[in-house]
Amino acid sequence: MSEQRPRIDIALVHHPVLNKNGETIGSAVTNLDLHDIARAARTFGVENYYVITPYTDQQEMVSEIVDHWQTGHGATRNPARKEALELVRISPSLGETIEIISQQRGERPLILTTSAKVQDNTLNYGSARDLIAAGRPVLLLFGTAHGLAPEISTLADHSLPPINGSTNYNHLSVRSAVSIILDRLLAVQN
Amino acid sequence: MSEQRPRIDIALVHHPVLNKNGETIGSAVTNLDLHDIARAARTFGVENYYVITPYTDQQEMVSEIVDHWQTGHGATRNPARKEALELVRISPSLGETIEIISQQRGERPLILTTSAKVQDNTLNYGSARDLIAAGRPVLLLFGTAHGLAPEISTLADHSLPPINGSTNYNHLSVRSAVSIILDRLLAVQN
Repeated sequence: MSEQRPRIDIALVHHPVLNKNGETIGSAVTNLDLHDIARAARTFGVENYYVITPYTDQQEMVSEIVDHWQTGHGATRNPARKEALELVRISPSLGETIEIISQQRGERPLILTTSAKVQDNTLNYGSARDLIAAGRPVLLLFGTAHGLAPEISTLADHSLPPINGSTNYNHLSVRSAVSIILDRLLAVQN
Repeated sequence: MSEQRPRIDIALVHHPVLNKNGETIGSAVTNLDLHDIARAARTFGVENYYVITPYTDQQEMVSEIVDHWQTGHGATRNPARKEALELVRISPSLGETIEIISQQRGERPLILTTSAKVQDNTLNYGSARDLIAAGRPVLLLFGTAHGLAPEISTLADHSLPPINGSTNYNHLSVRSAVSIILDRLLAVQN
């Protein structure tokens, strides 16, 4: 890891994702995805955690939850949670998210998808770790429901390999997958 | 990783653990700890996931949740979840858990604690990985609430180092911590 702070953002995509029949849908935001993933993001030095949903009722729900922990009762009761949920940004689409990040970073980030299945155009974890350490802005995409819809790949540069736990079981929660992948890319190794 | 299956079990301890004031308490079991941790355990080839609580009402709740996914409506709706929750075992205490494992394995397992803070008698991840790969039975202990009570260490052999994400923030969810530690100890590296 270089001395500069990693220029990394993550996005949890609620649309377009797949349902169990492989159809493209929008999924509902869940409270625990906000908390667990914000805590992991904060641990590993992620700068922004984008929650992508086009639905205004879902955007409002996210905003209310975050507000509770930023300025409400939660902020005084649990300052560590406040510090984590500060990273949450609400965004209506992946396209808009990429635009915002490109403006902030002064260049388009390297966009990496994640999946429980092997995808084309894979970048291994070691190479991705090296690019981040070298200061390349990176946006990591995670899917809810049964994963990112294939159309997402037209906006992405590479895919990270599935997490291979030496079994044929590939049904980690997205909370677990985010935690493991951030650890692989950003942890101080010990 | 050797060709033999790793001889590894995990335990999520609900008593004795610490509250935010550092007092020893018993915590409540949460549904999502059962699901997320069982899915991670199944992914990485863990054999048994012990949920340790001395409270019979909590034991009954765990049993009902697991039954729903084993034989109830959940089993047919989501076979992958059934396969994960099959690993859950209910146990009243760490002492009893160690006895059961010792009988099953034919020897006392190496008992490793985990913590968000540096502990005495640390074993690094590489060494723990090598011991597991060599076939040593291992029991990993995870604490709920504000972590394992110090008295647990009298039963343990070593502690794994805290997960260091290059920030000073050490408030991962236990679900994230389990996922990351299993990945470090058991993943096929890619």
